[in-house]
Amino acid sequence: MFSTVLIANRGEIALRVARTCRELGIRTVAVCSDADRDSAVTRFADECVRIGPSAPRRSYLNAAAIVTAALQVGADAVHPGYGFLSEDPDFAEICRAEGLTFVGPSPSVLSMLGDKAQAREIARRAGLPVLPGSSAPLETVEQAKAVAESIGYPIILKAVAGGGGRGMTVVRDPRELPRAYVEARVGAQVAFGDPRLYAEKYLDHARHIEVQILGDGEGEVVHLGERDCSVQRRRQKLIEETPAPGLPRALAEQICAAAVHSARELRYAGAGTYEFVVDADGGFYLMEVNCRIQVEHPVTELVTGVDLVREQLRVAAGDGLSVRQRDIVPRGVAIETRVNAEDPDRGFLPTPGVLESFTPPGGPFVRVDTHAYPGYRVTADYDPLLAKVAVWAPDRRQAIERADRALSEFEVSGKGVRTTRDFLRDVLRHPAFRAGKHTTALVDEMNPGGAQ
Amino acid sequence: MFSTVLIANRGEIALRVARTCRELGIRTVAVCSDADRDSAVTRFADECVRIGPSAPRRSYLNAAAIVTAALQVGADAVHPGYGFLSEDPDFAEICRAEGLTFVGPSPSVLSMLGDKAQAREIARRAGLPVLPGSSAPLETVEQAKAVAESIGYPIILKAVAGGGGRGMTVVRDPRELPRAYVEARVGAQVAFGDPRLYAEKYLDHARHIEVQILGDGEGEVVHLGERDCSVQRRRQKLIEETPAPGLPRALAEQICAAAVHSARELRYAGAGTYEFVVDADGGFYLMEVNCRIQVEHPVTELVTGVDLVREQLRVAAGDGLSVRQRDIVPRGVAIETRVNAEDPDRGFLPTPGVLESFTPPGGPFVRVDTHAYPGYRVTADYDPLLAKVAVWAPDRRQAIERADRALSEFEVSGKGVRTTRDFLRDVLRHPAFRAGKHTTALVDEMNPGGAQ
Repeated sequence: MFSTVLIANRGEIALRVARTCRELGIRTVAVCSDADRDSAVTRFADECVRIGPSAPRRSYLNAAAIVTAALQVGADAVHPGYGFLSEDPDFAEICRAEGLTFVGPSPSVLSMLGDKAQAREIARRAGLPVLPGSSAPLETVEQAKAVAESIGYPIILKAVAGGGGRGMTVVRDPRELPRAYVEARVGAQVAFGDPRLYAEKYLDHARHIEVQILGDGEGEVVHLGERDCSVQRRRQKLIEETPAPGLPRALAEQICAAAVHSARELRYAGAGTYEFVVDADGGFYLMEVNCRIQVEHPVTELVTGVDLVREQLRVAAGDGLSVRQRDIVPRGVAIETRVNAEDPDRGFLPTPGVLESFTPPGGPFVRVDTHAYPGYRVTADYDPLLAKVAVWAPDRRQAIERADRALSEFEVSGKGVRTTRDFLRDVLRHPAFRAGKHTTALVDEMNPGGAQ
Repeated sequence: MFSTVLIANRGEIALRVARTCRELGIRTVAVCSDADRDSAVTRFADECVRIGPSAPRRSYLNAAAIVTAALQVGADAVHPGYGFLSEDPDFAEICRAEGLTFVGPSPSVLSMLGDKAQAREIARRAGLPVLPGSSAPLETVEQAKAVAESIGYPIILKAVAGGGGRGMTVVRDPRELPRAYVEARVGAQVAFGDPRLYAEKYLDHARHIEVQILGDGEGEVVHLGERDCSVQRRRQKLIEETPAPGLPRALAEQICAAAVHSARELRYAGAGTYEFVVDADGGFYLMEVNCRIQVEHPVTELVTGVDLVREQLRVAAGDGLSVRQRDIVPRGVAIETRVNAEDPDRGFLPTPGVLESFTPPGGPFVRVDTHAYPGYRVTADYDPLLAKVAVWAPDRRQAIERADRALSEFEVSGKGVRTTRDFLRDVLRHPAFRAGKHTTALVDEMNPGGAQ
């Protein structure tokens, strides 16, 4: 196993990685930007290196600064967390070139799956169902029009370099297309440094179902069941659960098997997530593959008992997976809710500020992952996640009641800071959610804050 | 199910009960003494009633004040937690007489098992193994001598009205007996209002193994496996775990079966714990039965997934148990550590004071039950438990590493306040504990703070 791991991330996931490292006896070195000088990670990691100013491009996205820090502290591996550089093939390659183990898939797999248009084509050719759409990046608005007409509206324009719900634009009317196409290209260039787009059929009332897989890099792949992440605002998840409610078990197994089959062909190494949309008729279509630990991984850990970060580290260190498929027997139901510093009544706009009170919930079957504390400053530089509150229960009804109870005891406030806490409770009590019949349209249908 | 439950307790167990009540949609009313006016329970319960001054006898042990409060707020049931009035047959009887459901066994079962000498005899006659000892309360020191000589030293003098590790004196030398006998009688009178003692053979290197049972009051009883609670100081538990390490499964099943058999005969209602000593040869002997939820119940909840407080409330409400024996399939290993405000270097003397910092651990597979917070005042009026830190893992080695990690990130300090945190970590790293070969003598053998 590694002796020193550098954690190339911030927030709750940096703590998450540090915790497993400590259990494994691995020394941890965190990195932090100026804004994160007082970060909780400084308490969890054995050492903390300042790598630059608050702007992500100059710190958490600064590959050179991170690799330099890793070499300086004598790290033998780099865990990238999620977001930032976690799926960047160049960063993985630089790590390798400098003798550092990158905890994640190989640069070639990252490269292949990171180009979302290419990943779609690879999946399609390997027999994985994908939605009708363009088979290559769109070159002109005319080409976009032609694709849209052949597959029918609504369509969704996606950035080739996007993913994780970012860089997507739904187009419902042919007249909107020219403007949407230009705006989406500009947006993709700004966000990802790559303006290319591709187009897919858009399903209005679908569920987001994803499969957690673990691969040993030698062709052995296991799945840890599926997650339903249909409660989203702006294509960003708010509530995730496992198993997926209302999904026939045979269909769930079919989706898991498809993910495993694909990951086996790629000789996938580490933790990954195959994201699908599932329509009302049980049709399922691959959206993308995320080559990293997922924000919502705790729900999978709660039902399977498997420490996913531990498995990532084992695979990266050459120790292989500690679990075989037959060892993975999910138990009960887990639900995670994301308490974000944002205002549900104002389109989930982030609300920066300083937390005055912050007392997360506890007690039976509650897990909290958070980097926040009383006095913590929420800045606009980073994502507004304050805490993940995950619960476990033997069945879904109890899990919902437990999640609601946990949120009810969560004290969090600060001048100017609004949170998703109460909105999450509204979702938990919504009849469609209770019935497990909700789709990705639920949050919009709830129309928090009235007409926008 | 009940509509309003009064929680006749304080500290973490009051929060524990309130949490399950909230999940069940039950309104909760807490009670508090003057010292607990700012208690966290006021945040968890729907209402809080002050019942008297800080001294337990005038508040949490004041049955009249509690029953009056329950009637005033319109409660239909009283949950007594652990300690205080939880095993008091008179309190249970008063509740019943006033039309309140007492969440626990019947007054007659409480009465029978509360007299520890009588309970011993009942168990013996029912075929449960007990240690050699007196078959009735001792009436004179001569009688004590005679018993001691017949069973051989060392012996342990126990208060008939004691239990839970309180009211016990080990006598190793016949010359110590007269003085020990008198002191133990006086101590029992002061602590329990009943001077009567009985004597048992004392085992020096034994393990404390206990069985969690649930009964529906109609003769249906299930067990939820055993717990090893051998890490004790002054016969008070510091670390508890399940399953018991190094205990052959056949023996564990035999012990569990004995507890179930006895509880069935008693038509036991609610949660109870059969406590045994197990010697190096696998002999097991009943010590006592605790007729209430146990401090260490979280480890059982973590491996079985069963919410024990929910089952208590179901049985009390006449809804029966939600689980059958075949539904209870323990998974993995759970360890609980008790972070107390006491000084291991000074014989675990309580250290009252105000907490300046208090940040409990979190993250994967960690459960914290605590009523403390920054600014919390630890008083000498109540037991010094600050927080229970329980962890789960697939195997014992990982569970130990996780418990150590969780304690390592627990920030707790205050002027004059010492805690067991670091001592608990020493135990987790002790070779005998790691090997699962420790006995109840471990803490004394570690001799914290040097010779005393």
